[in-house]
Amino acid sequence: MRFLQLLALSSLVYAQAPAPVRSPEVNADRRVTFRLRAPQAREVLVDRETAGRAPMTKGEDGVWTLTTDPLNPDIYGYRFVVDGAAFMDPVNAMMKTNLLGPTSAVHVTGQESWDPREVPHGSLTEHFYESKIAGDRRSVFVYTPPGYDAREGRRYPVLYLLHGFSDGSDGWSTVGRAHVILDNLIADKKALPMLVVMPLGYGEPAVLKGPRDPDMNRRNVTKQKDTLLQEVMPQVERAYRVKASAADRAIAGLSMGGGQSLYGGLTAPYSFAYVASFSGAAPEAAMLDGLDESINKKLKLLWIACGKDDFLLKRNLAMIDMLKKKKVKHVWNETAGAHTWPVWRRNLTELAPQLFR
Amino acid sequence: MRFLQLLALSSLVYAQAPAPVRSPEVNADRRVTFRLRAPQAREVLVDRETAGRAPMTKGEDGVWTLTTDPLNPDIYGYRFVVDGAAFMDPVNAMMKTNLLGPTSAVHVTGQESWDPREVPHGSLTEHFYESKIAGDRRSVFVYTPPGYDAREGRRYPVLYLLHGFSDGSDGWSTVGRAHVILDNLIADKKALPMLVVMPLGYGEPAVLKGPRDPDMNRRNVTKQKDTLLQEVMPQVERAYRVKASAADRAIAGLSMGGGQSLYGGLTAPYSFAYVASFSGAAPEAAMLDGLDESINKKLKLLWIACGKDDFLLKRNLAMIDMLKKKKVKHVWNETAGAHTWPVWRRNLTELAPQLFR
Repeated sequence: MRFLQLLALSSLVYAQAPAPVRSPEVNADRRVTFRLRAPQAREVLVDRETAGRAPMTKGEDGVWTLTTDPLNPDIYGYRFVVDGAAFMDPVNAMMKTNLLGPTSAVHVTGQESWDPREVPHGSLTEHFYESKIAGDRRSVFVYTPPGYDAREGRRYPVLYLLHGFSDGSDGWSTVGRAHVILDNLIADKKALPMLVVMPLGYGEPAVLKGPRDPDMNRRNVTKQKDTLLQEVMPQVERAYRVKASAADRAIAGLSMGGGQSLYGGLTAPYSFAYVASFSGAAPEAAMLDGLDESINKKLKLLWIACGKDDFLLKRNLAMIDMLKKKKVKHVWNETAGAHTWPVWRRNLTELAPQLFR
Repeated sequence: MRFLQLLALSSLVYAQAPAPVRSPEVNADRRVTFRLRAPQAREVLVDRETAGRAPMTKGEDGVWTLTTDPLNPDIYGYRFVVDGAAFMDPVNAMMKTNLLGPTSAVHVTGQESWDPREVPHGSLTEHFYESKIAGDRRSVFVYTPPGYDAREGRRYPVLYLLHGFSDGSDGWSTVGRAHVILDNLIADKKALPMLVVMPLGYGEPAVLKGPRDPDMNRRNVTKQKDTLLQEVMPQVERAYRVKASAADRAIAGLSMGGGQSLYGGLTAPYSFAYVASFSGAAPEAAMLDGLDESINKKLKLLWIACGKDDFLLKRNLAMIDMLKKKKVKHVWNETAGAHTWPVWRRNLTELAPQLFR
């Protein structure tokens, strides 16, 4: 607080504010310099998404620094590990939000689908409501594409996009950049204009608190489908100019949300013609009991992706085996990467162009 | 990352996740317990908004704890100071966002205007655009009240609500809870339904980077008015069902945004019948040269508030003196408190009922 008062005061008396450390700094050659002022610390590491831990070096001014090799354009979560305890970067406003373990984030810009460009931008609307089914107060984010006008014109198809365990309803926008990805794909005519609805994914909010049992985990999936179909979808179809048939609805999600998308799309009532799972926590076979090849007539696309290094790869391969045995048509994508957001932003970029064709 | 993978994995194999520390914990008696696992730290303090620093106690498990006295219901920013370096609470998802120094936040719930209740909720929409005047890519948040329908019905008045130095465009919603305050005031029939438009307040984005000079500070104020009147207001009046006359527009802000509101409302073109400043960085006299009592015919309310312990109190008292000399009608409120958000949430709660009457 004192630091900010000083800064604010300095802006009034036109004095110079004491220069705070700058972190992270993305250099022209895409090397990233991390800095932390911690004169009394004995060991400081950077723990970066997709890279793991690397030691920082202490300068005489008490500022620890690390400059990486050139990084591929991407958005990387990271924390500082100070004498064994992990913290966010105290001077970085860019967050990888998360309900259980928020981290800082650094954006190495490039020409990727999630890099903002000067194209027509859609909007993000957060709606707040009390969920009778989940028994909590929550919000849902709705992306409307450029040119969307509630007052007139065309009706749009809807992608219901589900986050993973420990994310909040803002996960797919704040961290996943779904709105930027759609802006860019639509501007390039690679994806059709669509709404993207991003609800909170906990059918059973207690799963976040743990301990939990198999029943609670099952309820978290089945009640999530109830909240989606009985609470979220009616709100959306009442308030927005959308098409309200299964042929114009898609459901996709990552990790926990991938499992929820498979359960939501492959069980009755069949409300989505497009179903996709990214690094999905595929439902246990018993939850897909009724699944057989008759689903092929209901689905236009069943798209399942998982990274080679993902701890859920085996579970996804088992799901693919089961789909083959049941003669359920599907597309399987074994991609590079592990259980991280850089994989899921790419999954959405690959999926969106295939929807509503 | 590893911790989250473990948690996710445990949710799949139905094992128990290792219990992370819980922080902050708001107890039934409104005492708050802060916890941090940092076995190797030698000294850990909690630095809390409105309270300053207090030492935590280390337990045998390497977890530092502090339990406060019962706190008044409010939302408090805080950081942990670990061996002299200040950090956010690594397990708390609730943030006091800020472009220069984000902190964690803890909400001690009560019956205050910013405590969510089961009343009809408005929505928050974030619009993204390139500012030609400021030369950056930015966003503006728009609160629409319960029952707002772009397709039909009444037109609404608009409050333009400006944040302080170092805040982002989400400051008044994420930290200020303007949407919750308006939901509650409208439900209680204390405030009229209105839109609240919360733009990014930097006319000169370079002020955030420092060093800066008096000219840059002046440009930051004058160009902010240009972005508001030439870029934000036209977007809003095109896209929303709003009344587009000065009598149906208010401008208010805190700190830097308070100064911008005074400049925006008290200089030509006179676009707002309601003008308010909370802990405002009142403009230097030269910027209000043309101000005289003829403004009284244009304004329905000029409302200026500042806390007794605010470092800007003297500057506000000088502004009040100047208004008296110029015979400009105004309402002056010297409130309790310093230069902090708890004051500004109360300021908005007191101002909103007086608007558009």
